Amino acid sequence: MRSTLTYSLRELISGLDATIVGDAECRISGVAILQDARAGQIAFLTNSLYKKYLPAAKAAAVILEEKFAADCPVTKVIASNPHYIYSQIARYFEVTVSPYEGIHPTVILGKGYSIHPTVSIAAGCVLGENVVIGANAIIEAGTVIGNHVSIGAGTILNARVTLYDNVVIGERSHILSGAIIGSDGFGFALHRGSWHRVPQMGAVVVGNDVTVGANTVIDRGAIGDTLIGHGVKLDNLIQIAHNVCIGDNTIIAGCVAVAGSSSIGKNCMIGGATCISGHLSICDGVIVTGMSSVTKSISEPGMYSSGIVGVVPNHEFRKQNARFHRLENLMQRVKTLETEIKKIAEETK
Amino acid sequence: MRSTLTYSLRELISGLDATIVGDAECRISGVAILQDARAGQIAFLTNSLYKKYLPAAKAAAVILEEKFAADCPVTKVIASNPHYIYSQIARYFEVTVSPYEGIHPTVILGKGYSIHPTVSIAAGCVLGENVVIGANAIIEAGTVIGNHVSIGAGTILNARVTLYDNVVIGERSHILSGAIIGSDGFGFALHRGSWHRVPQMGAVVVGNDVTVGANTVIDRGAIGDTLIGHGVKLDNLIQIAHNVCIGDNTIIAGCVAVAGSSSIGKNCMIGGATCISGHLSICDGVIVTGMSSVTKSISEPGMYSSGIVGVVPNHEFRKQNARFHRLENLMQRVKTLETEIKKIAEETK
Amino acid sequence: MRSTLTYSLRELISGLDATIVGDAECRISGVAILQDARAGQIAFLTNSLYKKYLPAAKAAAVILEEKFAADCPVTKVIASNPHYIYSQIARYFEVTVSPYEGIHPTVILGKGYSIHPTVSIAAGCVLGENVVIGANAIIEAGTVIGNHVSIGAGTILNARVTLYDNVVIGERSHILSGAIIGSDGFGFALHRGSWHRVPQMGAVVVGNDVTVGANTVIDRGAIGDTLIGHGVKLDNLIQIAHNVCIGDNTIIAGCVAVAGSSSIGKNCMIGGATCISGHLSICDGVIVTGMSSVTKSISEPGMYSSGIVGVVPNHEFRKQNARFHRLENLMQRVKTLETEIKKIAEETK
Repeated sequence: MRSTLTYSLRELISGLDATIVGDAECRISGVAILQDARAGQIAFLTNSLYKKYLPAAKAAAVILEEKFAADCPVTKVIASNPHYIYSQIARYFEVTVSPYEGIHPTVILGKGYSIHPTVSIAAGCVLGENVVIGANAIIEAGTVIGNHVSIGAGTILNARVTLYDNVVIGERSHILSGAIIGSDGFGFALHRGSWHRVPQMGAVVVGNDVTVGANTVIDRGAIGDTLIGHGVKLDNLIQIAHNVCIGDNTIIAGCVAVAGSSSIGKNCMIGGATCISGHLSICDGVIVTGMSSVTKSISEPGMYSSGIVGVVPNHEFRKQNARFHRLENLMQRVKTLETEIKKIAEETK
Repeated sequence: MRSTLTYSLRELISGLDATIVGDAECRISGVAILQDARAGQIAFLTNSLYKKYLPAAKAAAVILEEKFAADCPVTKVIASNPHYIYSQIARYFEVTVSPYEGIHPTVILGKGYSIHPTVSIAAGCVLGENVVIGANAIIEAGTVIGNHVSIGAGTILNARVTLYDNVVIGERSHILSGAIIGSDGFGFALHRGSWHRVPQMGAVVVGNDVTVGANTVIDRGAIGDTLIGHGVKLDNLIQIAHNVCIGDNTIIAGCVAVAGSSSIGKNCMIGGATCISGHLSICDGVIVTGMSSVTKSISEPGMYSSGIVGVVPNHEFRKQNARFHRLENLMQRVKTLETEIKKIAEETK
Repeated sequence: MRSTLTYSLRELISGLDATIVGDAECRISGVAILQDARAGQIAFLTNSLYKKYLPAAKAAAVILEEKFAADCPVTKVIASNPHYIYSQIARYFEVTVSPYEGIHPTVILGKGYSIHPTVSIAAGCVLGENVVIGANAIIEAGTVIGNHVSIGAGTILNARVTLYDNVVIGERSHILSGAIIGSDGFGFALHRGSWHRVPQMGAVVVGNDVTVGANTVIDRGAIGDTLIGHGVKLDNLIQIAHNVCIGDNTIIAGCVAVAGSSSIGKNCMIGGATCISGHLSICDGVIVTGMSSVTKSISEPGMYSSGIVGVVPNHEFRKQNARFHRLENLMQRVKTLETEIKKIAEETK
């Protein structure tokens, strides 16, 4: 279901840092990808992989950087950050069904709650005691909220979220379905051959403007709290262990695992499926590419990576594995050669 | 709980491409693994790892390939594809409790739905507006379905599934518990140091005869749709990002992550925990072994792999890591040797 | 929310194998980490990373090993296993809200159940037929339990757990939110280009004192059962495939994947994000470090690892990848050198 409203291009970029070169009055009825966009649609170019589609563009207008403008045969919206301009324009065309008005009669409320009258709570939610929810927050169906939980104004919990006791979530945050916040940290003490639970007494504190992806899990702290800073964006199926601390505006792609007590600075970018060992400290401004294993602290901003990437045919892979496991042998052979050469060089002097 | 019915072997293989060598009238009351099967049970051999158990087999009959028949001391069901023959025979012995008949009184239905009278919807489900569900579909307890969702005939949603708005699922598909389909794609534009959500305006379209595993997540498209072809089989805890396209009959093992806008062809097999970077294209008929990192497109069918596999004792692993990080040093030493040898060769000429 | 009760140090260590050196009568009101602990709080030292905070400790008392006692300026609780001692003391200060008393009126019960009168079942749970639940078990909100399920005394299911049919869980176990136990194993037979489901006829049997983490999935067996031994501890987002068998007191960190039919022995420790291929056998007492790929059986206790770990700057990583993929070339150059040296050595003889 998409919007049927149209806007002039001029209206759409009003207030944005972008310049129209071409027909500012053209009517825009929706967005599309560059190679598919037709009359009435606006497209964008941010990834140079897709530059090849520019000369044949059929869109009403294309949002792009100055450097690509010459190759664009249609109206251009020139901006230094086309992706951001696109994100703001696309909002005009996003259609969502209004949330349930008020608290659905099937919702179970615990004692002592403080819920702003503008809050929406859909069918089948269960809330514990002493829950506080700010203005305009939306709690979708089937969500379970523990005791002493606080949810800030404008925050959205999609269907089937779980918040354990004592979780605090800031304002305008977005928690996707299946996300679990505040679960018991994984702490056990070995005693006479069996594992004994270590009480997990901290909470999870999530800042403002945070996104927590679908089926992502954030454990509560063992003693102090697990901390997710303002503006942090977490993708799906991420594991955040107890007492992890993530700085403001850090973005983490899907399937990342961060082990206990590690801290990640502000404005970091962690690629998908990367693992970060426990008790590490990663400074502000670090980029770690996907599938890396971070086993030591990082104290300088920059881009980091690890391991071997890139698939090869399986028969070549088998050889590579064999060669890798014979590296010691290769090194010894080089040492032998060095000794022999030295001997020959001396003899032929 | 297992069936108490018995069948003759002849009945069980009726209509299947298999030949009985031995007692076709023997009664079969259940299935078992080769090494455990006793009188009345049928077993199979598909993995040569288990061939060693054949000579001592106590099963009533064993399903196997011709080449293993000579070693089988009991009745044989000879087939070119024993695993498929087994799968069809085992269906006779699978016992499941009948689903709830009709729509449970606790179910919350949105406006404008079109639900076939044969549909089962169990307790605690919440449906949005304009939901369409085809004949004989089964929606198990605690599932949440968004607005404008369409579910084909014969499809089963296990307990606690989430379908976001606009999701389309074909016929005879099976969505396991905790799976989330149609969640917001992970799209953010960086602007003045903070991340701004890019509206995710596409949907997810899932074909017929698809399996989506437990706690697997499939995000909706940013502009166009995320597409899961007919007959696709997805295991548990898989991440499918926005605008991914998966071709018919492709099978993907657990914990795989596919990043945004990548396409995987038809009849591919992706091993467990493999990661596929974004904006790639993998052609039909590709096999990628487990734990690989695919960082470039693949245009030829075949089997591909990456990285280093296989554990070694930790002390050896530490040495391997050190050697790997000194590869540049080794290469320089080889270059030095080459120069010296050349010099000596010239001098001794 | 923390406890407001205080205890004397003597009371807290009563019955534990620890010795107080200092003021046994000091009042303790809570726990804290070493560097934050203030008057009235008890801290501990188990990881030598944090030893540096000891000389400035402001805690009322510190639990530590004898060898660190000299550096501790406050009251000491000396023990050979400080982590275990801490875990037992911390229990005094953990505050939890009492569970719902009895069965909430919104709970849907199937036929033929046997639920002990002391059981707590919170709002919105749905139970199938013939469910058996032992004394003092706690089933939190929104949990769905299938048919013929058995849950032992004292076991806790957090909110939004799913147990499929025929699952058996022992006593005093703890299943965290979003965990799914008993889902269909991933078994398909290829026949004429498409995948046919292989009936998954086994169950899952979980022992006593087991922890299953948030959003972890344990599939049911294809023929026999998937088995989780007593005292097993599974972290979050773990995938346990069909017919896996995990021995008593084995502990597995987050995001691990264990493929079908593999068995892991007793008292093993599997590091986070490690993958274990199918049909393997790992003996008792094995430690596998994180992010390893186990592709062969392990028959000797010990610590194992695989792959390349540790991030480096991205430009160095690119060179390392290139060098790795040229290992064959390097080996050939070394062989050439060996031949040439031999020739020269013979000539200069």
